[in-house]
Amino acid sequence: MGAPSVINLGEKFGSFADHWNPRIVGGYNGNELRLAKLQGDFTWHSHADTDELFLVVKGEIGIEFRDGVRRIGAGEMIVVPRGTEHRPFAEQEAEVLLIDREGEPNTGVAPSHMTREKLETL
Amino acid sequence: MGAPSVINLGEKFGSFADHWNPRIVGGYNGNELRLAKLQGDFTWHSHADTDELFLVVKGEIGIEFRDGVRRIGAGEMIVVPRGTEHRPFAEQEAEVLLIDREGEPNTGVAPSHMTREKLETL
Repeated sequence: MGAPSVINLGEKFGSFADHWNPRIVGGYNGNELRLAKLQGDFTWHSHADTDELFLVVKGEIGIEFRDGVRRIGAGEMIVVPRGTEHRPFAEQEAEVLLIDREGEPNTGVAPSHMTREKLETL
Repeated sequence: MGAPSVINLGEKFGSFADHWNPRIVGGYNGNELRLAKLQGDFTWHSHADTDELFLVVKGEIGIEFRDGVRRIGAGEMIVVPRGTEHRPFAEQEAEVLLIDREGEPNTGVAPSHMTREKLETL
């Protein structure tokens, strides 16, 4: 097998424009590396069997938890433990690297109008 | 359980100075989120049972594989598949987010003078 490829986040983010529609850009130990642009409000949900990592590459996001809001800016990350209800939002467009278990729905156990049935691989 | 903490990469990198000595800053699905400053040459090694993710936050690193070198700059990432021999290096100091399976030695299956027996948690 040849040397693995380098993934340039800026190039990947430059290749799509829509919000709340994660693209898969790679894999790590049975998890998917996903890039998403966030703007506006997402729906409350949790992931039963996977933690979820958010690393903000550009802009700022918020995540509402049942006991308060966390704000995560560029150069910051947060891991939402499995089973923890949360609701992401972004007042202005933000770019985020997400890591989720392979095949995990973006809305976890709580399907909504924000659910994306099949994520595109870039 | 309360809302999870936000991890500020810049603050964490500002709290240590030595090279090739990863600090653990969090966990995700049985893996460790590690921050390391790299400068100079590491030793050849592979990880038998875990992929290894490198996301370059600042500067540029190289990774030598048996069939060539990959260069990874700030805003880029690479996943080294389990079992793949590699040798990281950095001509100038670089800051990197690494993800490895919990407890995985930094030199994998090939202990060397670069092995860190016990990683500090920040």
